[in-house]
Amino acid sequence: MPGVSVLAQIDSATGLDATLERTVDLVGVFFFAVSGGLLAVRKGFELVGVIALSLVTALGGGIIRDVVLGATPPTAFDDVLYLIVPLVAAAVVFVGHAIIEHRFRRPVMFFDAAGLGLFAATGAVKASAFEASAVGAVLIGVITATGGGIIRDVLANDQPHLFHPDSRLYAIPAALGATVIVVAWRNGFYSGGVAIGVAAAVFSLRLAALKFGWRAPTPR
Amino acid sequence: MPGVSVLAQIDSATGLDATLERTVDLVGVFFFAVSGGLLAVRKGFELVGVIALSLVTALGGGIIRDVVLGATPPTAFDDVLYLIVPLVAAAVVFVGHAIIEHRFRRPVMFFDAAGLGLFAATGAVKASAFEASAVGAVLIGVITATGGGIIRDVLANDQPHLFHPDSRLYAIPAALGATVIVVAWRNGFYSGGVAIGVAAAVFSLRLAALKFGWRAPTPR
Amino acid sequence: MPGVSVLAQIDSATGLDATLERTVDLVGVFFFAVSGGLLAVRKGFELVGVIALSLVTALGGGIIRDVVLGATPPTAFDDVLYLIVPLVAAAVVFVGHAIIEHRFRRPVMFFDAAGLGLFAATGAVKASAFEASAVGAVLIGVITATGGGIIRDVLANDQPHLFHPDSRLYAIPAALGATVIVVAWRNGFYSGGVAIGVAAAVFSLRLAALKFGWRAPTPR
Repeated sequence: MPGVSVLAQIDSATGLDATLERTVDLVGVFFFAVSGGLLAVRKGFELVGVIALSLVTALGGGIIRDVVLGATPPTAFDDVLYLIVPLVAAAVVFVGHAIIEHRFRRPVMFFDAAGLGLFAATGAVKASAFEASAVGAVLIGVITATGGGIIRDVLANDQPHLFHPDSRLYAIPAALGATVIVVAWRNGFYSGGVAIGVAAAVFSLRLAALKFGWRAPTPR
Repeated sequence: MPGVSVLAQIDSATGLDATLERTVDLVGVFFFAVSGGLLAVRKGFELVGVIALSLVTALGGGIIRDVVLGATPPTAFDDVLYLIVPLVAAAVVFVGHAIIEHRFRRPVMFFDAAGLGLFAATGAVKASAFEASAVGAVLIGVITATGGGIIRDVLANDQPHLFHPDSRLYAIPAALGATVIVVAWRNGFYSGGVAIGVAAAVFSLRLAALKFGWRAPTPR
Repeated sequence: MPGVSVLAQIDSATGLDATLERTVDLVGVFFFAVSGGLLAVRKGFELVGVIALSLVTALGGGIIRDVVLGATPPTAFDDVLYLIVPLVAAAVVFVGHAIIEHRFRRPVMFFDAAGLGLFAATGAVKASAFEASAVGAVLIGVITATGGGIIRDVLANDQPHLFHPDSRLYAIPAALGATVIVVAWRNGFYSGGVAIGVAAAVFSLRLAALKFGWRAPTPR
């Protein structure tokens, strides 16, 4: 972050430039919202359903994280952009879902993977800063990254996709990334660079799992 | 509220006479509980299912509101009438569901619409008083009014009714009403009378949607 | 608890030896986690699904209790054993589910009943200590004991088992036990012995319901 001279612009927990962190976070929010909106369209829901699934997918994980940590009101209700961005995504899906499904499938998966990495990293950092146990902070990282998608599937009356035996690795890269964050935090070598590296690694692992068909084992 | 001389009887947030507000709120709780209990009966649930769906429908939205705002314990666990009233409703449904379904369908819809308006208004007021963002306060108003019904449908293993393309306007009147509350609050002309007017308008809009078949648009 | 000389070892709310209470609590967590993992296996979920259902079943009720009471972060994220134990249970189920289903069905039901009694008692005590209303404390006891299983069923896309007309008494023994706790608490004769007696009574009532086929009534 060259050129940043005002200390207050560095988020004290994540060690990232606050504006950069928020921008990147909102990109993740946007694409998670798109995935929620698309499922609503596939289910035949009307406008309220499209908006609800967009909001829940984008914000559900972070709201659970903040409520569990006692950091109320959650960022989603405090910073208005966290609502504007998924509402815009819902509008885009409502109008353009056919184009998105047919021409932007790969970009949506790409950005969803980016959101997965970012949310796992920032969730684990925030949980560590709020003094969750080590394993608890890893779990909160995973919930931040995957909780919105699970609520999306529950509201659509599906089993959560990430539990299916034919799903590609999703929660496991998030768990590995969150573990690295927590280890770094507890051993004093955490920095904004570690967060960026972890988010990139989770992102890459998710894309590799999609490309090579990596799955978690199934019992028996 | 003529004749009210004790200042403490006026709720500082809503500007309503506290006894009146609680009474009206509990009427909404009762009828939301009836709608939950009736769904449980239709699903063939036993006593525990009837009680659970009554409680969840009546109190779920308000509990989410209070947990998200950090106003713990939620009113539902603090003020015992908020549990007694839906338990009575569950008992009434358990014994009299056949009569209610066949002879009181319209009154139930009527009072459900009243609950929708009241909960949207009081939810948006409480969120504003707890300094949620403007859009966040609107969303909390909508969640207060509709969240219990959504959890009811999830527990019954249905898709949320208000997302169906053949549902009549439900969340949208609540969102419009909550918006008026937030605009009034932020511009200094909020009062108990505004809350009553908004609740009445949401109620009327919902009844009109039922009567004239107004629906939200569906994608494509 | 003979030989306990350090006062701090007695939990000030439950009146139980803190180490004993935690040990017993973790036994309940283990067996609730087993029941969650087994349902995941039956549903054909992969590793992440088995872990998720184990965690949610074991910890869901307690997390709701703590979030509603404002006791954040919940015990589950604070005390690392509350995550280690259900993760071990998930591993045991992942490897040994066939043996557990065929040879340990009765022990699993037995220990699930023990967890039901313990969680109902400790949930009602904690809610009383946090000054929930009397009925609210009973409800929080029931939610602590049954909430994890309800979320388990929702994530598996089933209707909650305890609402089915052919389920044996489950929530009702928990409610009766929580009521005794609250009555004792409010009348000044609560003690650790009362908690143990209530947990044992709930446990026995649940086992009797299983043995003799006791069910809650169904409407009509």
